[in-house]
Amino acid sequence: MTEHHRRPVPLAKCYRLITHGPTILVSASHEGQRDIMAAAWNMGVDFDPPKISVVLDKASWTRRLLEASGTFVVQVPSLAQVNIVQTVGNTSGQQLSEEQGTDKFSRYDLKTFAGEQLDAPLLEGCVAWLECKLLVDANNQNEHDLFLAEVISAQADDRVFKDGHWDFTGHDQLRTLHHVAGGHYLVIGEAVQGVEIEV
Amino acid sequence: MTEHHRRPVPLAKCYRLITHGPTILVSASHEGQRDIMAAAWNMGVDFDPPKISVVLDKASWTRRLLEASGTFVVQVPSLAQVNIVQTVGNTSGQQLSEEQGTDKFSRYDLKTFAGEQLDAPLLEGCVAWLECKLLVDANNQNEHDLFLAEVISAQADDRVFKDGHWDFTGHDQLRTLHHVAGGHYLVIGEAVQGVEIEV
Repeated sequence: MTEHHRRPVPLAKCYRLITHGPTILVSASHEGQRDIMAAAWNMGVDFDPPKISVVLDKASWTRRLLEASGTFVVQVPSLAQVNIVQTVGNTSGQQLSEEQGTDKFSRYDLKTFAGEQLDAPLLEGCVAWLECKLLVDANNQNEHDLFLAEVISAQADDRVFKDGHWDFTGHDQLRTLHHVAGGHYLVIGEAVQGVEIEV
Repeated sequence: MTEHHRRPVPLAKCYRLITHGPTILVSASHEGQRDIMAAAWNMGVDFDPPKISVVLDKASWTRRLLEASGTFVVQVPSLAQVNIVQTVGNTSGQQLSEEQGTDKFSRYDLKTFAGEQLDAPLLEGCVAWLECKLLVDANNQNEHDLFLAEVISAQADDRVFKDGHWDFTGHDQLRTLHHVAGGHYLVIGEAVQGVEIEV
């Protein structure tokens, strides 16, 4: 059970959960509806308060829900979830709802839990979760599909994120996924320390 | 010599050079001055025309040069360059210039070559290069340190980027770097294919 491994991450260090460039899952809920999607285009934007940015296609149902609610969750999925990432990245929640009267969470049996700050669903089995408050910017959203948000709560799996650093040694199935294109991902590897060159 | 391995990447596929979330190096030149810096916060923004976004600290000299010239280069460094990345990420080109009358390229003996479209220096030994034209957005730049740009030319090392995909097998020193914090990086690992779940 991953819930035994979830630990709060101080907001001052939450940028470290996505700075290494993983593909993320974005979930949102509004008035009883909920959705989740994959987003490879995301990045940190500021440290204090912590801010992030993510690109969300206009066709996505998750986007409409988070525009309506003003909140969303970023979660960092693991190698064990690669087929979930691929599936929710290629499936429209709106189509599911209209055609089948269900949502992605029900359809794919995705287990969720409540956030510390938000009602939006947090997906079990991920290795990090960032609860976010949308910083509304009409120009960025409409012109560039670019969403800015402040992180208001963060958690991570303490088996692989400890003392502010990732360490996946011995937990290969919890390594983060880094999308390239068309369902082709690279899995994050080993750590290395850079040293400044002396001249 | 890496120059024998540089191949053009079609603009339609250049987003694949950074979608997996590597830390990049940003270089720029203006009126005889040049600089290079590291930037972990970067992402794709659009496919056609290809657009990217990168966060650049106000204190950086590279930022001032690219604001003046309206152009810059994004390059994807490799594991073999980890100390270069760490060094240019922690050194101010402006300080160097004022105190020592030199620039980072000279100081650290960094070899460069000319771009296909731009004069800005491209760093040898990287595994991908994207020449970019700044899409000026005063609000994003001033409020969020967020820069948007259109990619106008792209190249990659054909030993590790072929047919639109990364494959680092047999070239461990050319693997991309993914910064976490404080000189601590993760190196990209192996490939995996996601498959949609059937229900």
